[in-house]
Amino acid sequence: MSKNIKGIDFKEGLLKDYYLHAMWLRERVTDAINLDKNNLQRLYDPSLIDTNIFIVDYNISDKNLYVKFSDKTESYYNISDLHKEIVGKDLIPEKKLWSNIDLHILKFDSYVLKNDENLFIKMLEKFYEYGFVIINNLKSKENEILRFAEIIGPIRETNYGKIFDVISKRKANNLAYTSLGLSVHADNPYRKPVPGIQILHCIANEAKGGDSTLVDGYSVCEHLRKKNELFFNILTSTDILFKFIDKDTILENKGKLIELDSNENFKQIRLNGRSDYVPLLEKDLLTKYYEARKYFFELCNSLDFQIKFRLEKGMLIMFDNHRLLHGRTKFYPNTGLRHLQGCYLEHDSTEGKLRRLKSIMN
Amino acid sequence: MSKNIKGIDFKEGLLKDYYLHAMWLRERVTDAINLDKNNLQRLYDPSLIDTNIFIVDYNISDKNLYVKFSDKTESYYNISDLHKEIVGKDLIPEKKLWSNIDLHILKFDSYVLKNDENLFIKMLEKFYEYGFVIINNLKSKENEILRFAEIIGPIRETNYGKIFDVISKRKANNLAYTSLGLSVHADNPYRKPVPGIQILHCIANEAKGGDSTLVDGYSVCEHLRKKNELFFNILTSTDILFKFIDKDTILENKGKLIELDSNENFKQIRLNGRSDYVPLLEKDLLTKYYEARKYFFELCNSLDFQIKFRLEKGMLIMFDNHRLLHGRTKFYPNTGLRHLQGCYLEHDSTEGKLRRLKSIMN
Repeated sequence: MSKNIKGIDFKEGLLKDYYLHAMWLRERVTDAINLDKNNLQRLYDPSLIDTNIFIVDYNISDKNLYVKFSDKTESYYNISDLHKEIVGKDLIPEKKLWSNIDLHILKFDSYVLKNDENLFIKMLEKFYEYGFVIINNLKSKENEILRFAEIIGPIRETNYGKIFDVISKRKANNLAYTSLGLSVHADNPYRKPVPGIQILHCIANEAKGGDSTLVDGYSVCEHLRKKNELFFNILTSTDILFKFIDKDTILENKGKLIELDSNENFKQIRLNGRSDYVPLLEKDLLTKYYEARKYFFELCNSLDFQIKFRLEKGMLIMFDNHRLLHGRTKFYPNTGLRHLQGCYLEHDSTEGKLRRLKSIMN
Repeated sequence: MSKNIKGIDFKEGLLKDYYLHAMWLRERVTDAINLDKNNLQRLYDPSLIDTNIFIVDYNISDKNLYVKFSDKTESYYNISDLHKEIVGKDLIPEKKLWSNIDLHILKFDSYVLKNDENLFIKMLEKFYEYGFVIINNLKSKENEILRFAEIIGPIRETNYGKIFDVISKRKANNLAYTSLGLSVHADNPYRKPVPGIQILHCIANEAKGGDSTLVDGYSVCEHLRKKNELFFNILTSTDILFKFIDKDTILENKGKLIELDSNENFKQIRLNGRSDYVPLLEKDLLTKYYEARKYFFELCNSLDFQIKFRLEKGMLIMFDNHRLLHGRTKFYPNTGLRHLQGCYLEHDSTEGKLRRLKSIMN
């Protein structure tokens, strides 16, 4: 027990070799006057504390740390909780990049999901590991997607509405009419913020063709980073404008085709050939940009990375719109009805629910 | 007129000294087969075009450019539209940083707003210039905020619900009871994504005290950048964890207290002393971080930057939650009812509407 020190140097135990700064400890006091136990929000402004604060007394036991500060505040800390925070382990599982995948492990039954919390946790874990899950056994009727969204979290409503329809009806007047395939893309890069999660519910898929395609965009990015550094650098540094216009709105947002965070981790992909406008760069740079984009596009649409499966009526996919790219093979509208309903969610809902459920289980 | 060239070098006119790259022009063709006139979305994948494409013929007239490409595509372009895109002028006005402001220019009447499109445009312009507006003359009843939100765009619903209540009722048993002031802060930095816009509607403000405070956070950041580079660098580079817990969710997100975009422009402020957890950095760096945060906090809460005004019943404020910080002076709950309702919106709604209305007017 030392007195009047600026921090505690741990010599043994779980916190061995860590130095806990007095102010860092002070703003983590756990008594009911300073911390709302219900939501872990502080009940004071830590910026009002004198930054010269020091520790006047402390005691380390097996599981707890007791500290008394120069401003007379005292607190007990759970050493295991401090350690958990320091090592920064999140309850959200790490991403597992894939180029091909056994869909079996990503399929869940909607009825069981609603009644089995462990399965619900597993579904959200797979969603974060692989970027998508498939839910079977929903009713194949309109607005059923709202009932599914309810068990996840609030819908991110946009100018498209709460949900949107992807529908193609039989047109008797032209039997040869074909609806072209959609290469894989991210939705709504022109929106601010870009929706984090998309769900698509299949009400009918009676037409010939129209299979779903998915790609783990981060897996393709990782490949690009290793194989072509020049292209990778161009796509992670060039700001692209994305635009959408209709009678009610003009949406614009800028961003990199591949966005990295400050630790060089993948943050978001914005591959969308319908709405991207590269700035008028110097001509050689522009030539390189187009080569890089084409190369990335071709990787994303190649069988090396893309999976294909059929959404049947009553099925739903939920995917991370910042990580995965989705598309559709061509189909023949006159061979039958094809009707999907979609909506957007945000990651705070899914992450928040998963952490909460897992921390109760643990 | 040259043939088989990789781009057009403009010698005169609006596009003088610009070199328009063949591919850049090719992916901007404007005919109905290639571009959906209704939403300006391309009807093809530009990444499928051969990057070796060249121009086989072109003609420049006063207002138009005609180009024929090696893949036989032909297109007319409006030179003024190309110029507008190249110079990148957005219809959203530039930010005007403030440390004090005449509220008069930011006040709008809700009734007039609904019936006067020019005033509606002006309101949104002021919102983007100054980061907030005040709307008068709403009914002071519950859920009236939903009617106002409707004229702007969809609500960003969260686990708090579509709207949330900030309510404090008279408690007869303790007349001396005081509700502490709230220093200025950004809302929900633990959410993913952090809500872009907040609106707060006042239903009753009969208690003594409880004035509203607002600060242009970007103005404070600009001051900090000039006055204390070390502090500025620490706050723009240290990743902070923000947390919120309740019985249904555990929300976590990381970010800088001051976030810059890749051009060093301000992108978002996350000052929130209730929910911020700085990592256990090396001790001297941590000491500097706390000094920097305290300095920034004190600037934000000083009269040099903060304005104070009273929200009366029937008034509403709408502010940019990424730029402005908001707070409240202390009040005495037992002197009367204080009741606000709030909700979140996103910037795509407001920006999209403003661009659309202005482009019709122009």
